[in-house]
Amino acid sequence: MTAFASERRIRFSDCDPAGIVFYPQYFVMFNGLVEDWFDGPLALGYRKLVAERRIGLPTVRVEADFKAVSRFGDAVTLSLEVERLGLRSMTLSLACAGAGEVRMQMRQVLVATSLETHRAIEIPPDVRSVVQPLVLSNTLKECQ
Amino acid sequence: MTAFASERRIRFSDCDPAGIVFYPQYFVMFNGLVEDWFDGPLALGYRKLVAERRIGLPTVRVEADFKAVSRFGDAVTLSLEVERLGLRSMTLSLACAGAGEVRMQMRQVLVATSLETHRAIEIPPDVRSVVQPLVLSNTLKECQ
Amino acid sequence: MTAFASERRIRFSDCDPAGIVFYPQYFVMFNGLVEDWFDGPLALGYRKLVAERRIGLPTVRVEADFKAVSRFGDAVTLSLEVERLGLRSMTLSLACAGAGEVRMQMRQVLVATSLETHRAIEIPPDVRSVVQPLVLSNTLKECQ
Amino acid sequence: MTAFASERRIRFSDCDPAGIVFYPQYFVMFNGLVEDWFDGPLALGYRKLVAERRIGLPTVRVEADFKAVSRFGDAVTLSLEVERLGLRSMTLSLACAGAGEVRMQMRQVLVATSLETHRAIEIPPDVRSVVQPLVLSNTLKECQ
Repeated sequence: MTAFASERRIRFSDCDPAGIVFYPQYFVMFNGLVEDWFDGPLALGYRKLVAERRIGLPTVRVEADFKAVSRFGDAVTLSLEVERLGLRSMTLSLACAGAGEVRMQMRQVLVATSLETHRAIEIPPDVRSVVQPLVLSNTLKECQ
Repeated sequence: MTAFASERRIRFSDCDPAGIVFYPQYFVMFNGLVEDWFDGPLALGYRKLVAERRIGLPTVRVEADFKAVSRFGDAVTLSLEVERLGLRSMTLSLACAGAGEVRMQMRQVLVATSLETHRAIEIPPDVRSVVQPLVLSNTLKECQ
Repeated sequence: MTAFASERRIRFSDCDPAGIVFYPQYFVMFNGLVEDWFDGPLALGYRKLVAERRIGLPTVRVEADFKAVSRFGDAVTLSLEVERLGLRSMTLSLACAGAGEVRMQMRQVLVATSLETHRAIEIPPDVRSVVQPLVLSNTLKECQ
Repeated sequence: MTAFASERRIRFSDCDPAGIVFYPQYFVMFNGLVEDWFDGPLALGYRKLVAERRIGLPTVRVEADFKAVSRFGDAVTLSLEVERLGLRSMTLSLACAGAGEVRMQMRQVLVATSLETHRAIEIPPDVRSVVQPLVLSNTLKECQ
């Protein structure tokens, strides 16, 4: 179950001298996707979360597989699923697909932190309440 | 006369530890705007131009004024005017505005080059024919 | 056995509005480390490999753990070990440490490709001959 | 009179699909040069200035000329001169040269600001006292 998706064109500035996406740039793209998800459907206000409430969502683990190249100008779809929602962390599954094939796929664990101490805190209730219904395992359970 | 404009939100990844746009990032944003202009209204195919026709549009001069800060999460409008169209170069005037104020303004001179030799070439006729009608000075002359 | 290490200061441009390294920037730093390793001790000429011999070393898998934050201005050590050398790929283990603690650790699988076709090719003999002696498992075997 | 200079190799991550430095990346390089100048010869502690004293040095104007391309792998020298030191701003002249030719040259006006208000403040006395002797116009006057 895709929680959120967005279309995008691979930009000149995303690419390296080999003419393909410079791989760290995928993480920048997905960072933008999470922002748009928070600002859009989740209506949580990413800026407010970070700048006013001083809550960060740093990445503590990433596993990424690069399966096919994306070239400058390619139309791609970035998508996001919520794999798991823990007390202080959430695990997202993200993919970049283009022309019917998955180009890059990753699992990312984000942890809620206080931006004053950079220590983990519990995921705030308003974030939890909108993310919880999207958790994949829930959906799977409901389907059984 | 604005030739092209696009709305955008200032992203987390655009900002520096001061919480405002890291200034080189404005140039990356405007690079994307020019790409979207070529791909959208001009229908020139930026990727085709660069990757297939091997024509580059490198920047040979930039003059930029940073007038007010843009913060993470700000909604901004990026806009583009064509100031001048020469034989081998074009001069764009670009601005980033938010909340009714101009945040950053720049003049950029792009030159057409062969990507084989990195030498200047004449602006291709198909590019010239769609950009020419947008040149500001023309418009001003027509108004007189 | 560390195959290569380099010291670096965390730059303003590496950091995000939370004042810590924007996580995709670690991958950019490690990309530079691999370049310096190829250009320095391995004496393979990274540019020559990519631009002249048209051999790429794209990343096909990354697993990264972010264990502690690195702040703007921190002195860090980036280090690299060779975990495995396959026919067409090599697995590196990379770490960023500062003030006596590991901040970020990752395993990266690079594959040799033709930059004409973006298909995997065998690791060239000159690369193999200088990387082979550095492979960790070899070293472990030799120690037994 | 060069106030500060540093050698660097053009990295893969600095370059675009045309195989040359992506022009915004020059500004990132120069940002690093100014940091190294503050941390090195000026001994002002750039991080301390920004993170502890909450003093920013945002760019308010940039004029840049891109005269020749720098390619991936090129050895370049980045250099810095102080053109002018005002009450609240300083003007730097920066250049990137390689293989005996100037590749890119720019004039950059930095203004001291409070990072709380993002308003201009007077350049702190400790910064002034170490930068003043380096101002080009001074040197010229002294030579007359």
